[in-house]
Amino acid sequence: MTIHPTAIVSSTCKLGMDVTIGPFCIIHDDVEIGDNTQIHAYSEVGIPTQLAQTTKLTIGNNATIRSHAIIYSGSNIGEGLQTGHNITIRENSEIGKGFQLGSRGDVQGDCIIGDYFWAHADVHIGKQSKLGNCVRLYPEVLLTNDPNPPSEDVLGVIVEDFVVIASKSLIMPGVTIGRGAVVAAASVVTSNIAPHKLAKGNPAKEVCNANVLRMRSDPSMKAYPWHLRFHRGYPEEVVSGWLASAQEGSQGL
Amino acid sequence: MTIHPTAIVSSTCKLGMDVTIGPFCIIHDDVEIGDNTQIHAYSEVGIPTQLAQTTKLTIGNNATIRSHAIIYSGSNIGEGLQTGHNITIRENSEIGKGFQLGSRGDVQGDCIIGDYFWAHADVHIGKQSKLGNCVRLYPEVLLTNDPNPPSEDVLGVIVEDFVVIASKSLIMPGVTIGRGAVVAAASVVTSNIAPHKLAKGNPAKEVCNANVLRMRSDPSMKAYPWHLRFHRGYPEEVVSGWLASAQEGSQGL
Amino acid sequence: MTIHPTAIVSSTCKLGMDVTIGPFCIIHDDVEIGDNTQIHAYSEVGIPTQLAQTTKLTIGNNATIRSHAIIYSGSNIGEGLQTGHNITIRENSEIGKGFQLGSRGDVQGDCIIGDYFWAHADVHIGKQSKLGNCVRLYPEVLLTNDPNPPSEDVLGVIVEDFVVIASKSLIMPGVTIGRGAVVAAASVVTSNIAPHKLAKGNPAKEVCNANVLRMRSDPSMKAYPWHLRFHRGYPEEVVSGWLASAQEGSQGL
Repeated sequence: MTIHPTAIVSSTCKLGMDVTIGPFCIIHDDVEIGDNTQIHAYSEVGIPTQLAQTTKLTIGNNATIRSHAIIYSGSNIGEGLQTGHNITIRENSEIGKGFQLGSRGDVQGDCIIGDYFWAHADVHIGKQSKLGNCVRLYPEVLLTNDPNPPSEDVLGVIVEDFVVIASKSLIMPGVTIGRGAVVAAASVVTSNIAPHKLAKGNPAKEVCNANVLRMRSDPSMKAYPWHLRFHRGYPEEVVSGWLASAQEGSQGL
Repeated sequence: MTIHPTAIVSSTCKLGMDVTIGPFCIIHDDVEIGDNTQIHAYSEVGIPTQLAQTTKLTIGNNATIRSHAIIYSGSNIGEGLQTGHNITIRENSEIGKGFQLGSRGDVQGDCIIGDYFWAHADVHIGKQSKLGNCVRLYPEVLLTNDPNPPSEDVLGVIVEDFVVIASKSLIMPGVTIGRGAVVAAASVVTSNIAPHKLAKGNPAKEVCNANVLRMRSDPSMKAYPWHLRFHRGYPEEVVSGWLASAQEGSQGL
Repeated sequence: MTIHPTAIVSSTCKLGMDVTIGPFCIIHDDVEIGDNTQIHAYSEVGIPTQLAQTTKLTIGNNATIRSHAIIYSGSNIGEGLQTGHNITIRENSEIGKGFQLGSRGDVQGDCIIGDYFWAHADVHIGKQSKLGNCVRLYPEVLLTNDPNPPSEDVLGVIVEDFVVIASKSLIMPGVTIGRGAVVAAASVVTSNIAPHKLAKGNPAKEVCNANVLRMRSDPSMKAYPWHLRFHRGYPEEVVSGWLASAQEGSQGL
């Protein structure tokens, strides 16, 4: 365990083995951090808030939290967390394994997020969003939740497994994006998207099955479902599960 | 008064009663901060700049400035300031009471902002914007000001009282958005919007009166004017004033 | 040389004359910083990464790096660097003189950027982008690079000299924007734009020559090419070169 002498670490934290806490970090009360975790400079973890249903924050093993991170109390984050810089994760979120959040990403709280979520930079995940496994969000994707701004109604977006949402897309409150669907860049999604469709435009419409798309670098190769061809950053046992399911034809594709 | 031992606070500041300054904060010369104010970690307040018309920064009572805030010298901010994380407020701005600025919000300077302004995350308020009372801006709203980029011309946007601008909308230089108007998500507003209209699209057009819209959760209820039904975060005396005006029929709606 | 006592500065750095390092900064190994440079508070410079082709970071003379900056190892940045707050510059980038990057700007790495680049706030420059001289990007411009997200293919955007891209525009992977072209606000550029054209819309189309546009403040004056009328922030010798070329008619305009 290596705690930089300038870091401020509560005596009530539970830190695993081989945890490194960088310069000028602040770790608040009741934070539990797994083994082999690195927290980089200027990060503040476990910020208390009256909105949290529990005062505890749990972060699993093998996390890398890059500098200037802001993580509130009251969430539960699985192993293998990876963040960019300046991220914010608010209270009451249940987040699975292998969660990757790019720089300036913002999880607004009360979210449920599956395993192996991945987001590029500047992604905004509104309160009460529900995201499945292996979802991928590109820069400046925004998931909203207020159907009549301002209101007390919170209709979080639902994004199912393997969905890809490309850059600058906006998802309107309460929309469900079905398993394996692809949302093209700069789309505004105002109604549900069926599984495995490509949706596009403002308002976004389903234009074809996503599996019609080809790789630009090799038009003989289908681009989707992407997880049959793209494996970087996913654990080997996860990938072998994907490939086995595909062989059994159980992908529903 | 509680100043964290790692904070760097100029001896020329005037701090009110019950002010709390968090770890690793920097408070520069000639900053005046009201009573009952909290400044969270890694915030830098009163940054000097040659662009400021005065070296002084005034922040009213009862402010909460969340971590990693950046506030320049030369502005005057009313009581009840509330910020998210990583906000930036530049010089020469006159900002009213109850100003709320979400995370990564950016006030570029030389702005005039009324009372009870509220903005969600990632809002960008260009130089020389003029915003009325009770304006509400949603994530990634961008108020621009240069009609011929690049130029020396600065045509700030004017947003009147009670206006709501939904997520990802872009407001072009010099546009006026009239009192009580509602701008739908992902709009690009290139010309003035009349009071109490709903505007939508790229380029945004007035599609109907805003008071035609209904609550999704209860279609018997009008969604706008919103301040007759939504009161969270506004002081009781403000809300009772709204309701009294409405009874007198003086809302002009 | 002024190093704040709270700053952490590696003994292997080479700092020029009259370098100022602000409070709570971290300067890593093998960073070389030119004369007359200021690094403001909470900045971390020279962050090591295995992705860097060299462990060295070079920053030229006369730089101003504003607070909360994040600069990785492995890049080479010319003299006169100016950044806003919370910027990120990743590894393996070759960046020319007079580079100006607004707040929260993000250079994702492996980029080649010419002289006198200027970007306003929240600009995202994807990996392997190639930007010419005197390019100007406005708030929330996003340069992407993955033609089939997710994939291993990286098709960086190419932006030639003197191009202006207005606010909230999205540039799709592999697109080339020709010398002196202007991209209107909120455009989505999906295919190449010829030199000196105005492009607009989603998908963006060339609508006219950029030199047809007039100044709003003075319709007798052509708005483009902008560098014949706008010179703020560019060195005198650069501007006199522009004007001389224009007189010789060698601008190709």
